[in-house]
Amino acid sequence: MASQTTGQPVAPSVENPSASESVSMEELQLAARNHAMPLEALRYPITPAGLHYLLIHFDIPAVEVASWRLAVDGLVERPLTLSLEELQARPKVTLPVTLECAGNGRALLTPRSISQPWLNEAVGTAEWTGTPLAPILREAGIHSDAIEVVFTGIDRGVQGGEAQDYQRSLTLDDALRDEVLLAYAMNGAPLLPQHGYPLRLIVPGWYGMTHVKWLRGITLIAEAFQGYQQAGTYLFKKNEDDPGVPVTRMAPRSLMEPPGIPDFMSRARVLAAGACALAGRAWSGQGIVERVEISTDGGRTWQDAALGESPSQSPYAWRPWTFDWQAAPGAYDLCSRATDSAGNIQPLDAPWNVGGFMNNAVQHVAVTVS
Amino acid sequence: MASQTTGQPVAPSVENPSASESVSMEELQLAARNHAMPLEALRYPITPAGLHYLLIHFDIPAVEVASWRLAVDGLVERPLTLSLEELQARPKVTLPVTLECAGNGRALLTPRSISQPWLNEAVGTAEWTGTPLAPILREAGIHSDAIEVVFTGIDRGVQGGEAQDYQRSLTLDDALRDEVLLAYAMNGAPLLPQHGYPLRLIVPGWYGMTHVKWLRGITLIAEAFQGYQQAGTYLFKKNEDDPGVPVTRMAPRSLMEPPGIPDFMSRARVLAAGACALAGRAWSGQGIVERVEISTDGGRTWQDAALGESPSQSPYAWRPWTFDWQAAPGAYDLCSRATDSAGNIQPLDAPWNVGGFMNNAVQHVAVTVS
Repeated sequence: MASQTTGQPVAPSVENPSASESVSMEELQLAARNHAMPLEALRYPITPAGLHYLLIHFDIPAVEVASWRLAVDGLVERPLTLSLEELQARPKVTLPVTLECAGNGRALLTPRSISQPWLNEAVGTAEWTGTPLAPILREAGIHSDAIEVVFTGIDRGVQGGEAQDYQRSLTLDDALRDEVLLAYAMNGAPLLPQHGYPLRLIVPGWYGMTHVKWLRGITLIAEAFQGYQQAGTYLFKKNEDDPGVPVTRMAPRSLMEPPGIPDFMSRARVLAAGACALAGRAWSGQGIVERVEISTDGGRTWQDAALGESPSQSPYAWRPWTFDWQAAPGAYDLCSRATDSAGNIQPLDAPWNVGGFMNNAVQHVAVTVS
Repeated sequence: MASQTTGQPVAPSVENPSASESVSMEELQLAARNHAMPLEALRYPITPAGLHYLLIHFDIPAVEVASWRLAVDGLVERPLTLSLEELQARPKVTLPVTLECAGNGRALLTPRSISQPWLNEAVGTAEWTGTPLAPILREAGIHSDAIEVVFTGIDRGVQGGEAQDYQRSLTLDDALRDEVLLAYAMNGAPLLPQHGYPLRLIVPGWYGMTHVKWLRGITLIAEAFQGYQQAGTYLFKKNEDDPGVPVTRMAPRSLMEPPGIPDFMSRARVLAAGACALAGRAWSGQGIVERVEISTDGGRTWQDAALGESPSQSPYAWRPWTFDWQAAPGAYDLCSRATDSAGNIQPLDAPWNVGGFMNNAVQHVAVTVS
C-alpha cells in the first residue's frame, strides 16, 4: 500500500479511514464491466483477445461500418472524409504496443480516489495494425495556426456533470510523431467492439486514455483543448487546489506472473520448495526498460533479473524478465521493480494524488513455500 | 436489492450492516480478473470474444496441445485416451448456448456472501462447437455399477482450505443427454485460453460451474462425488445448518440493454423524451422463455414485450425481446421479467441463501428522461 504524502483527500473521507479498505457499489459496477489482465496472462508476449485490460468510460457503441467515416477537419486546407476501406488501402504498419490505464494502482492508494478501482494489472500488449497519422494530417494540409489535434470518439455519456463525446487532444508535435497510428486491427483481426471497432488511435508510450476508441473525428485547433477528459481529469494533482500536471507517458512498471497455485478467495499463493523460475514483464513509456530487480523480502533487498527482448523488439512493448529462485520453506513477499533508460525507477510507495493516477509502486505477491 | 428472508448471515456480520453496501479488497481482486458482460453487449445475439462473462476459480493454465490428452477412465470397459485431433474427427455439433454464473446477482443480496461479487450481468451466449459426450462414454463401455461421471480440469488451486484440481460431476443420466458436448471451438474459433482451451464441457441449461474448462479427465464412479466444488459449495442453503440443495439449472432471467447514455460513475441513464425501443434478452435453463414483461415503475405494473427467436432457434440460448416505450419527461425505474414454460417467473426479491446463488431478481435500470 502506498502512503499518503500530501494533500486533501477526496472521498472516502478521513472520518472513515476503513472505507479505503472497501469498495463502494458504484465502484463495483465499474469493476464488473471493465477488467484487468489476469496476472497469469503475463506468460503471453502478445495478450490474447479478451485478456487485455479494458476501460470503457461510457458504452461500447454499435457502429455500422458501411456508413462510418473518419472526418479530418478544423484548421486544415483540405478537409478529408475517409472510409475504412480507404484507410486500409494506405501504408500499413504493425506494431506491438503495451497499453496501461493511467489509473492502474488507484485502489492501492490511501485514501482512494473514487473511480474505476484498479489494483495492479490494468495492462495488455497487442499487435496493432493501422496507418500512420502524420501523412494524413499533411495530406489535409496543416494550417499554420494549428497547435493541437482533437480526437473524437463515437462513445457518449456524462462525466463530471457534463454530457460529452469522448475527446482527447495531442499537441501537433506529438500527433506528428512517426509511431502514432490509426489502428483498425488488433492481433491480426478487426478490432473487437470493446477495443474501438472500426478505428482507434494508438499513441505508443502513453497511458490508455490517449488511445481514443471508436474514432470518428480528427480536428485541428488553434488553442489548448479544454474538454473534460483533457482539462477536467487525467491531471496529477497533489491536492484539490493544485492545478495539476497532465498525465501523459507511462511510468516504469514491472509485474510478476504469480508462482505456484492460488487460493480462490485471497489469491495468496502456495508453492512447493525447490527451484522456481520467476517470470514477468516490464515496460515504461518514458524510456526503454534497462533493469529489473527481484526482492523476496518485500523490497528490503534486491537482485537483478535477466531481461529478454520485447515482442518484435518493439520499443513500445514490454520486455520479459526471468529470475531463478531457490524457494526454501517459509513465507515470502515477492516484488519486482523496473528501471528505465531515463533513470526512472519504480518506488515502493508512489506519491498520493487526487485522481489516483500513475501509481507505479512495486507489486507484492504473497507466497507460502512448503 | 433483495431482502433477507431467513437464515444466519455469513460475513459481513450483522454488527456491521453497512458492510453489505461495500465490497472488500479480496472481493475486488476477484472482480478485477473475472468480468461480467457489459449490458450494452445484449445487442449481440452471439456475444463477441472478450465480452462473454468469465469466472476462473484458480489460474488460466498453460496447455501444450501437442502433449494434451483427454482420459476417459474409471468404471469403463475400455479406457480411452483422446487427442484433440481425434476429438475433432468425431461427429461435430454447433449449438448456441447461454451460460450464466450460479452466483450472478450475489452482490445484490443482503447480507452478501463473500465470493465473486456479481451484480446482474454474469452471462454470455456463444456458438459452441464440439462432439457429443454420450457416444464417447458408450464407446468406452459403461460399467453397470457407474452412477456418476466426474469431469476434471487442469486448473488447480486452494478453496475451502483444500488443494484441488477443479472437478464437478454429473449423474450418468445427465451426462448421457444428447445436448451435452465436449467443445473445442467458440464462435467458430479455437477456445480462447480463458474459456478452456483446448477442451471444455458444455451442459446446456446448467449454471456455469458445470461447464468444466481445460478438461483433462472423465471418470465414471459408483458413488456420489464428494469433491469440494460438488459437495462443499454450489449448494442452495437457507442457513448454515441447512444441508442444502445442489444448484443445477438456470432460473429464468431477463436483462435490458440500458437505453440512452450513461453517467460514467453511477451508470445512471439519461434519455431524450420520445419513442424509445427498449430491448434485451431472456433465458431459462428450466424451460423455454414464453413471456417477458416490462415495467417502467419499478415492478408495480407490467406490460408484455414482444419475444423473438433465439439464435439458430436453439432451446438453450436466450431469446430477444423488444418493447416500444413512449418516454415522457420524468424519472423511471425500468424492469423486465421473464416467465418460462415450466411456470417459473422472475421475482422482485429472490430468496436469500448462504452462498448467494441463483439470485434471479428483476434488474432495475434507473433512467431520467428530459
